Amino acid sequence: MLANDTFLRALKRAPTDYTPVWIMRQAGRYLPEYNETRARAGHFLALMKNPDYATEVTLQPLARFPLDAAILFSDILTVPDAMGLGLTFNAGSGPRFAHPVRDEADIARLKAPMIDPALRYVTDAIRQIRQALSDAKGVQRAPLIGFSGSPWTLACYMVEGGRCDDFRWIKSMLYARPDLVQRILDLNTRAVADYLNAQIDAGVHALMIFDTWGGVLAHRAFQRFSLAPIARVIARVRASRADAHIPIIVFTKGGGLWLEALAASGADALGVDWTVDLTAARQRIGKQLALQGNLDPAVLLAPPDIIRTEVRAALDAYGPHPGHIFNLGHGILPCTPPHHVAEMVEEVHTYSRALRQRTSESDPFYSA
Amino acid sequence: MLANDTFLRALKRAPTDYTPVWIMRQAGRYLPEYNETRARAGHFLALMKNPDYATEVTLQPLARFPLDAAILFSDILTVPDAMGLGLTFNAGSGPRFAHPVRDEADIARLKAPMIDPALRYVTDAIRQIRQALSDAKGVQRAPLIGFSGSPWTLACYMVEGGRCDDFRWIKSMLYARPDLVQRILDLNTRAVADYLNAQIDAGVHALMIFDTWGGVLAHRAFQRFSLAPIARVIARVRASRADAHIPIIVFTKGGGLWLEALAASGADALGVDWTVDLTAARQRIGKQLALQGNLDPAVLLAPPDIIRTEVRAALDAYGPHPGHIFNLGHGILPCTPPHHVAEMVEEVHTYSRALRQRTSESDPFYSA
Repeated sequence: MLANDTFLRALKRAPTDYTPVWIMRQAGRYLPEYNETRARAGHFLALMKNPDYATEVTLQPLARFPLDAAILFSDILTVPDAMGLGLTFNAGSGPRFAHPVRDEADIARLKAPMIDPALRYVTDAIRQIRQALSDAKGVQRAPLIGFSGSPWTLACYMVEGGRCDDFRWIKSMLYARPDLVQRILDLNTRAVADYLNAQIDAGVHALMIFDTWGGVLAHRAFQRFSLAPIARVIARVRASRADAHIPIIVFTKGGGLWLEALAASGADALGVDWTVDLTAARQRIGKQLALQGNLDPAVLLAPPDIIRTEVRAALDAYGPHPGHIFNLGHGILPCTPPHHVAEMVEEVHTYSRALRQRTSESDPFYSA
Repeated sequence: MLANDTFLRALKRAPTDYTPVWIMRQAGRYLPEYNETRARAGHFLALMKNPDYATEVTLQPLARFPLDAAILFSDILTVPDAMGLGLTFNAGSGPRFAHPVRDEADIARLKAPMIDPALRYVTDAIRQIRQALSDAKGVQRAPLIGFSGSPWTLACYMVEGGRCDDFRWIKSMLYARPDLVQRILDLNTRAVADYLNAQIDAGVHALMIFDTWGGVLAHRAFQRFSLAPIARVIARVRASRADAHIPIIVFTKGGGLWLEALAASGADALGVDWTVDLTAARQRIGKQLALQGNLDPAVLLAPPDIIRTEVRAALDAYGPHPGHIFNLGHGILPCTPPHHVAEMVEEVHTYSRALRQRTSESDPFYSA
């Protein structure tokens, strides 16, 4: 069914011939063909909500680079948008909700969306992408990753109404009225679990939960308001889609201090940002989970020889052990030259293959 | 000489009757009297560069709250401003340099400032503040903290030219031309050491190095480009002002993963942000250094009973051991109600006193 299952094998910490690689925001503004499609669509929401366009841009990076996974082109704000908060994207200022959730009355009005029909454009896109990834015999080139924002991260956008520096509104609510934040999180937990289940039913091979704003929380608050809802989402998906065995990656940006706690969330793999030393991270949790990351996206602005050096350093840091998925530590920067991405992907594949070769020659048991 | 040396004793990890407390940006926009003085000065730079105004606002929070230290009212950008980069502050967009350092030619033109006269307004302010803190017999109410940005943090502002999201310019330079970044850091290291020495000579009792942007670096890059220059600054200050025995606090925001490495910088204390669990941090480095922190500034937006609960949780997390200086995990938010600060300071003092009492009654050896 899959021509290349390296990514899925690595997620299970099974041995692979090389380290698989994909890139957060791999279908995005650094690609001229993406900008061309977006211009045709008119604006970001029109691009994202149209399954034809979403399919087209999802496949664009795979046409350029031998990536080991495709990721659904979408946005983490689809769920609060489906709750009727009035999502818009403005050039420069980013996403904005016309109706942020600021008080008890706002929360009382909130309803979890019916995934179908409100988010059918996402499940339709997944089905179309799976078709487009298949050859005539139905063999898929690479696995497809679905995703959602974490309940906490969605709550940040819902309460703040857009991008913010200090998370003043939601943190004020969190400390003054934790019960209100909990009500939003409970709603988001159900909505995210339903959304991920719908993505599984539509055909994704793996799931990723983006906890973009978990890292802004204080130590104790993180456990309660970000990690606990993520664990509940995973438990719900596991309970209702147990026979699907869909691996789940959790990525808390800035969560390097909390890897042990995150490892207990039920996830199969953790994404780590570039502040994390992969050697230390593997020693801390590598016996239980796979790790995904963690090149600084700014490395891709440097000349090719530097990119290759930094790629090798990350691969060496993890070592020849199973369970590493190469990625950036956050989304690729829009100003990245596409041919730099090609250098990175090639170096990941060739160097990780050589690393395994060298290790198995010197000590056949080391890679086990 | 000092009516209250609790803060200095805690920095040396000596026993204290209670946990001392001060607040990052304690002289700032949350205080109406500060805004009044700033309005009189006309704009931020006029306020900061005038020793009379700087003295006035430095003392304002101590008039309101029984804080255990004063901190020089100034800005971390005084040093690059003295290099002639053309600093301005605009409402909303924050600091901006008219002449950012973007290439080799810009770097060749850079010169370390002569602290005197370029930064005499800072040393004059320190002398005036020490006067203002003294009573008729020359006894000072509380110690005075001087400070500087870290070489890396200053370099970020110098190269980016102002606030930024992705640190694109300096990270591009860092990966493509590390030699150029190193030249800026070498210059900044000398300038910061000279600046801190001048502050010691003018009379500060302790120093703090704000590594505001160390946490944006990748693991390996942090060691080389942020931590190593900080260690060199400390070594220079120690070598040239050895007999002054001025304790130094280093605060890398987002540096919780790197406490062990930071502890080897030569600092006497580390500041930690709110993502750090104080129990774990003390276990990791508390035998060597004092710890400063780490209440989430957003806690101060909550009602008083919540503030007191969160203060007690932080004090309990550190425990009754010597070497804790209470503070926020970052600067106080401008929208903080001043009477909430009073609640926090009172709870720190009363609860930490009770904590020591309780512990010494139950086990006289526990607090040793």
